[in-house]
Amino acid sequence: MAEPLRIALAGLGTVGAGVIRLLASNDALVTARAGREIRIIAVSARDRSRDRGVDLSPFEWCDDMTAMACRDDIDAVVELVGGADGPALTLARNAIREGKALVTANKAMIAHHGLALAQAAEAAGVPLRFEAAVAGGVPVIKALREGAAANAIVRVQGILNGTCNYILSTMEDTGRDFGDVLAEAQALGYAEADPTFDIEGIDAAHKLAILSAIAFGARLDFASVSAEGIARVRAADIARAADLGFVIRLVGTADVENAEPGNAGSSPARMLQRVRPCLVARDHPLAHVDGPTNAVVAEGNFSGRLLFQGAGAGDGPTASAVVADLIDIARAAADGRDAGPPFSIPADRLVPMAPSEPGDRRGRNYLRFTVADKPGVLAEIAAAMRDGGVSIESLIQQGRSTTEGEVLVVMVTHDGPERCVTDAMRLLEGSPSLTAAPLVMPILEA
Amino acid sequence: MAEPLRIALAGLGTVGAGVIRLLASNDALVTARAGREIRIIAVSARDRSRDRGVDLSPFEWCDDMTAMACRDDIDAVVELVGGADGPALTLARNAIREGKALVTANKAMIAHHGLALAQAAEAAGVPLRFEAAVAGGVPVIKALREGAAANAIVRVQGILNGTCNYILSTMEDTGRDFGDVLAEAQALGYAEADPTFDIEGIDAAHKLAILSAIAFGARLDFASVSAEGIARVRAADIARAADLGFVIRLVGTADVENAEPGNAGSSPARMLQRVRPCLVARDHPLAHVDGPTNAVVAEGNFSGRLLFQGAGAGDGPTASAVVADLIDIARAAADGRDAGPPFSIPADRLVPMAPSEPGDRRGRNYLRFTVADKPGVLAEIAAAMRDGGVSIESLIQQGRSTTEGEVLVVMVTHDGPERCVTDAMRLLEGSPSLTAAPLVMPILEA
Repeated sequence: MAEPLRIALAGLGTVGAGVIRLLASNDALVTARAGREIRIIAVSARDRSRDRGVDLSPFEWCDDMTAMACRDDIDAVVELVGGADGPALTLARNAIREGKALVTANKAMIAHHGLALAQAAEAAGVPLRFEAAVAGGVPVIKALREGAAANAIVRVQGILNGTCNYILSTMEDTGRDFGDVLAEAQALGYAEADPTFDIEGIDAAHKLAILSAIAFGARLDFASVSAEGIARVRAADIARAADLGFVIRLVGTADVENAEPGNAGSSPARMLQRVRPCLVARDHPLAHVDGPTNAVVAEGNFSGRLLFQGAGAGDGPTASAVVADLIDIARAAADGRDAGPPFSIPADRLVPMAPSEPGDRRGRNYLRFTVADKPGVLAEIAAAMRDGGVSIESLIQQGRSTTEGEVLVVMVTHDGPERCVTDAMRLLEGSPSLTAAPLVMPILEA
Repeated sequence: MAEPLRIALAGLGTVGAGVIRLLASNDALVTARAGREIRIIAVSARDRSRDRGVDLSPFEWCDDMTAMACRDDIDAVVELVGGADGPALTLARNAIREGKALVTANKAMIAHHGLALAQAAEAAGVPLRFEAAVAGGVPVIKALREGAAANAIVRVQGILNGTCNYILSTMEDTGRDFGDVLAEAQALGYAEADPTFDIEGIDAAHKLAILSAIAFGARLDFASVSAEGIARVRAADIARAADLGFVIRLVGTADVENAEPGNAGSSPARMLQRVRPCLVARDHPLAHVDGPTNAVVAEGNFSGRLLFQGAGAGDGPTASAVVADLIDIARAAADGRDAGPPFSIPADRLVPMAPSEPGDRRGRNYLRFTVADKPGVLAEIAAAMRDGGVSIESLIQQGRSTTEGEVLVVMVTHDGPERCVTDAMRLLEGSPSLTAAPLVMPILEA
């Protein structure tokens, strides 16, 4: 059997501790599957004294994580520090430059700097892997990068943030409102003290950008992902959606236009990447994703629709993904080769894709207006719809005010271009009849 | 870029034609992801004259497929002939012996001869891959072999036969009976003229045996898979199950006892592999798998429960899996290495596992009796339950005879050892009160 793969582990939060526990608990099978031992040599974190519930005595403690990563007796660095920039990025750049394999769970860093890191890794001939960055323990990066590699993938959709999905499905189960469920999730440790990245859809946007690059062979473009979070979704929306046969989920959707297989087309390929709360039809595979679960649907031109689902976060699932990457690296490196380009094709050949025009998209939409309880309001909304060119399929006006003097008006539009809805909303901007900005949610049909 | 990977394709049914179409349609992206061209050099099938809807003129036609596979200008052989033995097996053995990579969609051959073929492939240092043999286009072999490689997997469950799932979900949607739906499925081409392998659960058993070997690191043991098909499921069972909150699906389940990670335990590991129609709770991930879809749930000790779902058959999905294997082989072989052991760990290190005792399993069961419409029958059944030690949670006796003089009695048992149910059924064997053998279906809780 080959020599051990020698690991430096930077960052000892819950995931770092999970990796240590996994390698201790499953050591014989990991060695059998990797073809050699995966051995942690050194660890580093900010605070040496903190009790992490794992025995660190077998490992050398290093105060300087970048120096640790560059040591001669290290083959691969596991970065679990977090943060798009700062120490994590310095560590990653230095590790790659020193010819070390790099495994990271850091979606923010990969979303922002994945292209440059992949170029550096390819130039250095070292593997860069980030299975744990998307959908926790679900091997969706591998599934798209390798399992579905024969397909032109035309769309990826995913429930990519466990915190939001937990909040939305708890609101659905209990009828409680957003703020209440968020506070409980924070108390239970399911949501961060500062939940902005999760509930505003930024975390899901990081993951979506990574998935698009791999699925479409597109140049990673986090800046073009539009993100809208779940803070404005009310219990009443969930109840109305249920009446109409839908559940509400925060869904990241990326699709591509003019993507001839292999990009041989004459029109330049363009893509649209968006994270939005959506009404999901009950027979859509994402409708049954509850609690902190993540799921990704990919549509390949030969495979058809594929679904990958599982725990989106947590120390065990994330450690499972980190160690899967290490096993791949151990297997490949035993044969003296790297494990292929991080984004499936070489970074310099990823195709730059301009953002598509969202107004051209067709579909049905759910529109919810919070309006003053006074005459003429409905006429004003209906006129805006008419002038925007929005055709209304159904309208529900709640009989009674929800809060002081406020009534909810809910509409479902017929299938039509999104531009019309945007235009209609613009006509209503600043109207004194509306007590808050309208909430527009796309409908995902099965 | 490296030299093309040169392919010989044996078998030109729908899947073979699909592979040809895929490589023509997606050639640029397949080349980009494989790092080199995947080029079909030669093809072979029984009947040269048949129109397959694809242009065969770019390829050399060979009448002798084994001779074709052994040619010096071939790197990899794709076996799509089918059948556990006969020409497919001869071809596979010869191809491996001649140092060719082998890709196959042949579940019967892998279930019966996978161990010997893997040993031969490892000895010859060539890849043997069979992603297309299980769950069509869903990359579940890769997901278990690599994606979940860090986990001790304790259970795999799957809907592995699209024909059965189509029949059961159509029965559910329409209320029609088995024979009627099967006949329609045959007319539509969703079921074979001789559907025995599908409806008796043999095809699902082949796939389950392959999954168990990879998931548990167990020595492939098709002979120990017990299979019960769906021919005895009636429309009335589906209706009763629905009343109780369940759907009926043909599920392959494999689990393992005493499987210390890496098999370091003192008691020998044992496994149970069964294919049976089951009542699946509506919040179990397999409950939403409809039509010809396949799905696999794997439970890892760190990842938790993972779900992989998609089209289980068809030319496009199966071709997607075949070409994914070819891309893996092309990537690896470009670096002069093989692609790792077919079953994740070397074949000689797969652990022989004796079958577990099914009587020890605990769970709830659905029991359906078809009885003569006369006094005393219920007392006889109830006595058998008591004497077997089965505790009954609920009982439904249909008010009216379904067919001439026949009444259905349905029971759900409390959680208990399966042995008790088996004993009770034995007590009723040959009873003149029963007009047919009772149907016992395990209940899969969420």
